[in-house]
Amino acid sequence: MYELKQTCSTTKARLGELKTDHGSIQTPIFMPVGTLGTVKGVSQDTLIEQIKAQIILGNTYHLYLRPGCDIIKEAGGLHAFMQWDLPILTDSGGYQIFSLSDIRDLDEEGAHFQSHIDGSKHSFTPENVVETQRILGSDIMMLLDECPPYPSSYEYAKKSMELTHRWAKRGRKAFLETEPLYGHKQAQFGIVQGGTYKDLRIESSKFMADQDFEGIAIGGLSVGEPIELMYEFTDLNTDYLPKDKARYLMGVGTPANLLEGVARGVDMFDCVMPTRNARNGTIFTKNGRVNIRNAQWKNHHDHLDPDFPSDLCSKYSMAYIHHLIRNNEIFGLVLASIHNLTFYLWLMEEVRKRIADDTFGEWYPGMVEQLEQRI
Amino acid sequence: MYELKQTCSTTKARLGELKTDHGSIQTPIFMPVGTLGTVKGVSQDTLIEQIKAQIILGNTYHLYLRPGCDIIKEAGGLHAFMQWDLPILTDSGGYQIFSLSDIRDLDEEGAHFQSHIDGSKHSFTPENVVETQRILGSDIMMLLDECPPYPSSYEYAKKSMELTHRWAKRGRKAFLETEPLYGHKQAQFGIVQGGTYKDLRIESSKFMADQDFEGIAIGGLSVGEPIELMYEFTDLNTDYLPKDKARYLMGVGTPANLLEGVARGVDMFDCVMPTRNARNGTIFTKNGRVNIRNAQWKNHHDHLDPDFPSDLCSKYSMAYIHHLIRNNEIFGLVLASIHNLTFYLWLMEEVRKRIADDTFGEWYPGMVEQLEQRI
Ligand SMILES: [Zn+2]
Ligand SMILES: [Zn+2]
Repeated sequence: MYELKQTCSTTKARLGELKTDHGSIQTPIFMPVGTLGTVKGVSQDTLIEQIKAQIILGNTYHLYLRPGCDIIKEAGGLHAFMQWDLPILTDSGGYQIFSLSDIRDLDEEGAHFQSHIDGSKHSFTPENVVETQRILGSDIMMLLDECPPYPSSYEYAKKSMELTHRWAKRGRKAFLETEPLYGHKQAQFGIVQGGTYKDLRIESSKFMADQDFEGIAIGGLSVGEPIELMYEFTDLNTDYLPKDKARYLMGVGTPANLLEGVARGVDMFDCVMPTRNARNGTIFTKNGRVNIRNAQWKNHHDHLDPDFPSDLCSKYSMAYIHHLIRNNEIFGLVLASIHNLTFYLWLMEEVRKRIADDTFGEWYPGMVEQLEQRI
Repeated sequence: MYELKQTCSTTKARLGELKTDHGSIQTPIFMPVGTLGTVKGVSQDTLIEQIKAQIILGNTYHLYLRPGCDIIKEAGGLHAFMQWDLPILTDSGGYQIFSLSDIRDLDEEGAHFQSHIDGSKHSFTPENVVETQRILGSDIMMLLDECPPYPSSYEYAKKSMELTHRWAKRGRKAFLETEPLYGHKQAQFGIVQGGTYKDLRIESSKFMADQDFEGIAIGGLSVGEPIELMYEFTDLNTDYLPKDKARYLMGVGTPANLLEGVARGVDMFDCVMPTRNARNGTIFTKNGRVNIRNAQWKNHHDHLDPDFPSDLCSKYSMAYIHHLIRNNEIFGLVLASIHNLTFYLWLMEEVRKRIADDTFGEWYPGMVEQLEQRI
């Protein structure tokens, strides 16, 4: 499903295309997160027309609990339920079980947990998360994996990785033995684990490369480790991943993280940061991040960036946005969410242009520095 | 500023036009409430393009406290601050002082209160609310009035009405002695009071009719009295109001209330109900109101009303909207707010058509019954 089109001459950055039955995705790409069948604060029309999203992410754990598989199946899948006709990627729910659910018990079979909402008991297994994602009908589904916390001992990271590998085989078998429900093809991505141990990371990359997944994700990073480790292991992992499959760095990250990831050969990213931080007043711009809640913006009647194509930047004044966000007005949260996602997608488009004309390598270090500024 | 165009042959309904420097308003009209310089959950573009709002309301009390007059003056007025170039009406803040502020002391001079936000002390007088509304730059400003609670004794209602009348003279004087700040004309509306006492209501109507305000509001209703009293006093008041000035029934109401008000000669309405109730899941439709939070809509995969031009009605399923609102998703609140306002403005357009072809009188009683249904 992935076609490599061009490679940067000085970094590992790749230009490519990912084909799905709901359309093609130009990579590198950022995927807005639509946890509960909605990207928080943003309409589907806005995602397409203003933000220029090419694919969004849905969270299996959340959707499985609310509205539940029965409702989504009746609706004809997540695309129909939320009226979104572009590609969707769903995670397997593993990460949320470990981070959100109240009680858990992990064994060879799968993960047993109680809902963080009503305490009801559930199990996710490598097989039934395939079944759930068949019901969701995502274009790309993810394996069930165990994501060890940071830091983890070598022993724990190794045992956990080995479990993820056994689950990968079971998950792939379940995928190959079942059919999509709604007439469009689905793909399945493997997930590399191995904690922060080089030999395990290499072993896991090789293992996932040897399976026949349609793409491969780098998991277990961005979980609290120093940023240098995240970059180092991303770099190491992509060295061992096949060139003809898309690589997806899960849960990453800041605009600078995205550029560093691209430079290390990553094609796909997702993160709640652009929308979550928007609601707290953090605005990402070309020149760094702004906290619009700060008192300094109270009577700043200029535009934040008259040239940037978002209403937050070029239609309304900083004083007005400050006023809206300080008073928790829905419209302020919406404007900031739309802006940040527009910015993330703009940045990825810029990245693709720079790879295409082979200026990415000289451009990105300065841009990283700029993006890391606090205005 | 008001031009009466046509009168219903069987009710007191009037078709008219209200002219301001920010454009003409076709009446009867409903004015969406933009308390803090934003209609909650709705963008300015959506108000114009989708909802077809012709005028919005701003709350002087709220804007005076946040962002404050200094900020709005620096911005060049509320129109510039919020980038809204159609008409704005601002209340005087009187109602909010009595309903929201923590401590109050009312004397001949004005109303003294402590902010409900930080406890800071302020006074509103008939003169300084004119000054504040000069700063806001609304197209239509309101007098400072005292709105007595329901029920009030005859003595209290009379004393209060007389105070409002003295304030009306002072407020009008202040208005005539000051100039607009931003180059567009401003109008000032008087407010009828008198509690729920016929003779006082008649006296107050006559008093306001005798002044030279550009329009007249009916105040002190929709404050907890039985609905029949609201209709009765509205009817009584409009009998004594001049035909060549717009009549504005403050803080009203449900879709049915609007039709009943129109039938009694009212031209303008405002209410937080369409947006506030939207956030609680109440959806207004031609066939009555729906509480979309109710479990019965959980797996209702049809559209609420495929023919009504709002995304809530005709793009998304009831199950999806139910899911969004139950999970307090911003997008659900936004869709419901946009829908309800679109519905209110659609209803007013329908009313104007019915007055124009003189079918209002036969149409509205059945419509009131329909609108009052709970689905
Ligand atoms: Zn489709
Ligand atoms: Zn203007």
